[in-house]
Amino acid sequence: MKILVLNCGSSSLKFQLFSMNKKREKMLAGGFIDRIGGNQDSSITYYINHKKKLDEAQPIKDYDGAIKIALKTLCSSKYGIIKNIHEIDSIGHRVVHGGEEFTKSMLISEKVFQKIKDNAHLAPLHNPPNIKGIESSLFYIPFARQIAVFDTAFHQTMEPDAYTYALPYEWYEEKRIRRYGFHGTSHRYVAEEAAKIIGKPIEELKMVTCHLGNGASMTAIKRGISMDTSMGFTPLEGLVMGTRCGNIDPSIPLQIMADEGLSPNQMDLLLNNQSGLFGLTDGDSDMRTIEEKAHSGSERHKLALNIFTRQVKKYIGAYAAVMGGLDAIVFTAGIGEKSAFIREKICEELDFLGIQIDEKQNEKNNTVISKGMTFVLIVPTNEELAIAREVMKVLINESNNP
Amino acid sequence: MKILVLNCGSSSLKFQLFSMNKKREKMLAGGFIDRIGGNQDSSITYYINHKKKLDEAQPIKDYDGAIKIALKTLCSSKYGIIKNIHEIDSIGHRVVHGGEEFTKSMLISEKVFQKIKDNAHLAPLHNPPNIKGIESSLFYIPFARQIAVFDTAFHQTMEPDAYTYALPYEWYEEKRIRRYGFHGTSHRYVAEEAAKIIGKPIEELKMVTCHLGNGASMTAIKRGISMDTSMGFTPLEGLVMGTRCGNIDPSIPLQIMADEGLSPNQMDLLLNNQSGLFGLTDGDSDMRTIEEKAHSGSERHKLALNIFTRQVKKYIGAYAAVMGGLDAIVFTAGIGEKSAFIREKICEELDFLGIQIDEKQNEKNNTVISKGMTFVLIVPTNEELAIAREVMKVLINESNNP
Repeated sequence: MKILVLNCGSSSLKFQLFSMNKKREKMLAGGFIDRIGGNQDSSITYYINHKKKLDEAQPIKDYDGAIKIALKTLCSSKYGIIKNIHEIDSIGHRVVHGGEEFTKSMLISEKVFQKIKDNAHLAPLHNPPNIKGIESSLFYIPFARQIAVFDTAFHQTMEPDAYTYALPYEWYEEKRIRRYGFHGTSHRYVAEEAAKIIGKPIEELKMVTCHLGNGASMTAIKRGISMDTSMGFTPLEGLVMGTRCGNIDPSIPLQIMADEGLSPNQMDLLLNNQSGLFGLTDGDSDMRTIEEKAHSGSERHKLALNIFTRQVKKYIGAYAAVMGGLDAIVFTAGIGEKSAFIREKICEELDFLGIQIDEKQNEKNNTVISKGMTFVLIVPTNEELAIAREVMKVLINESNNP
Repeated sequence: MKILVLNCGSSSLKFQLFSMNKKREKMLAGGFIDRIGGNQDSSITYYINHKKKLDEAQPIKDYDGAIKIALKTLCSSKYGIIKNIHEIDSIGHRVVHGGEEFTKSMLISEKVFQKIKDNAHLAPLHNPPNIKGIESSLFYIPFARQIAVFDTAFHQTMEPDAYTYALPYEWYEEKRIRRYGFHGTSHRYVAEEAAKIIGKPIEELKMVTCHLGNGASMTAIKRGISMDTSMGFTPLEGLVMGTRCGNIDPSIPLQIMADEGLSPNQMDLLLNNQSGLFGLTDGDSDMRTIEEKAHSGSERHKLALNIFTRQVKKYIGAYAAVMGGLDAIVFTAGIGEKSAFIREKICEELDFLGIQIDEKQNEKNNTVISKGMTFVLIVPTNEELAIAREVMKVLINESNNP
């Protein structure tokens, strides 16, 4: 069965075509289209079997145009991997915000699609591109089954004491303000992979998954279930990120707004786009650059790095407390998969939790990097494969309960 | 030596007179004056040797008037404990915010007083009454040595990675926006008392102190030094409190402000006065009431209680991670000293940290309430005595280094 995964970000489209069955999961081809609708030409890259086949630029004015290009490339006589779009059985759409309605991936019926649209106000930056992607996809490939896979769904297992903020309760009742959490597809995927590596059923494990990329979040996963997660009502809360502040005293933005006469929207942009590692270092949001400059002696970059790792360390402790213990820490995403230095710094002095980093394994970015009682693992995340798996799951469920 | 401690809160004055020397610390008399400058009469209570001697009401229009009444009562022929105010050697003033300038208690010189005034903008609710108290006290008792004891001073040992927010760095450089932490006098006091109870030098201990009252904060104290604390730039951050929200996604207030057209100041009041336990339960901020209603079956009060205890539990784990282990948890202040149920709930399932509550000792509010490797202690806080001790410390230092 051929499954196309579409991930419409803000001004970008990631697409991957999988061949899936119970025994085999193979990514056939995929690509990335950036700067959609911008002043510059969009860049288009395209891979077959992880080999770059295309790298060009042309103007693409919207998601509809981007999806058309993606489908054309997949079917092209030169680079095509399928003869025509009718070979595509199903399409998995990444949808950032599923609100409280969606606790699992869903076949997109008219009703489901309406609910996704109703939730758009909860993620004004993310859901609208997702919705446009679904619309174009319904238009161009109406015969395929379309499945929505939500970033928030995995976290819908959280108990009310984990998701409720200590705010006037009517803000929850009337505005649905609560912790949702994001990166759910990634957290679930790496937790499942980690259980396989450890060789125990996930139901027997207490894990903290650390998705450390430009956006970063952590999740406490007990018996395969999300108990708590660091992102909240929006992806701003929690860890220090590339340009996002993470946890701060909530009175700080209010004082700055009063001092400088800023609007809520202006302040939101400052906290989301000008803060985090970027704000601390006056302009560097990429952890590789920050590590380099820290190692070359920049005190400010050292500080940024220490603030980042300290925050991850605090969440490890907090989530161990929430779960009543810890069997494994799982590192994933850009920083989590690639920075031995940061992983070591995070795990420093956590011997009391059974955590001991094996320096050699860590340096090599190997899978198991601990020599203590508690597992420390590197599991590369693969959100597109995880979405394709979700599509399979929905289809199997549908065929069992038609 | 007789030391008067003055604690000017917002619209209240707490005063206590101590007789102090190296061997003896005795509270001679004290009182509380409430509703200063309000529409109703102020209430005045006064105790000698913890026995109530006075409970009356009269109009008091400002802190000056309140301090005059306090001094008159201490010297009165009927209830007096001293003949005249010349018996008072020194006065300890609680000052909430010492900014970055004050890392310890200080004899109030003209220069020190000016700096305290310069810091007032950092704690607009708290420092102005403190300043008025100092002014009246300098006027009425000019011959006594006046010492400022800062809530923030104990936390000035925090490293930059603990106190710096991941915000544009110039906000720290230009506006001094950083984590300060509060309740420092209490955290230090109970940590020192706890070390005595444990029978080890404080320099050998890793402790988490939990000051759980209507205002609540926690501190990681390693080798007697504050490494991290839950309150931040203001006392709004951290734990869920009587009416304060503690940690939330910082984008929530911005969204509410945009939706409802609120000003930063209106939002600040909502987060400080209408949130926390009060906001969750539609009006109950007192933990005793919340416990009662939760036990009688109110789901919302149960939820408030669970959110509160969960947050404390998370900080215990986070601070153990920051310190690289844990030797003791210390509970203090109203809730911490009196609620066996809440202490037990917080410590539930923390066996992996060596924490095991001894139910019987806990029920009785005894000092040592654990039977695990990690100490769990109840240490009643005594901020006034702690301030009197600080005064002694400053005077001894002054006489050694005149």
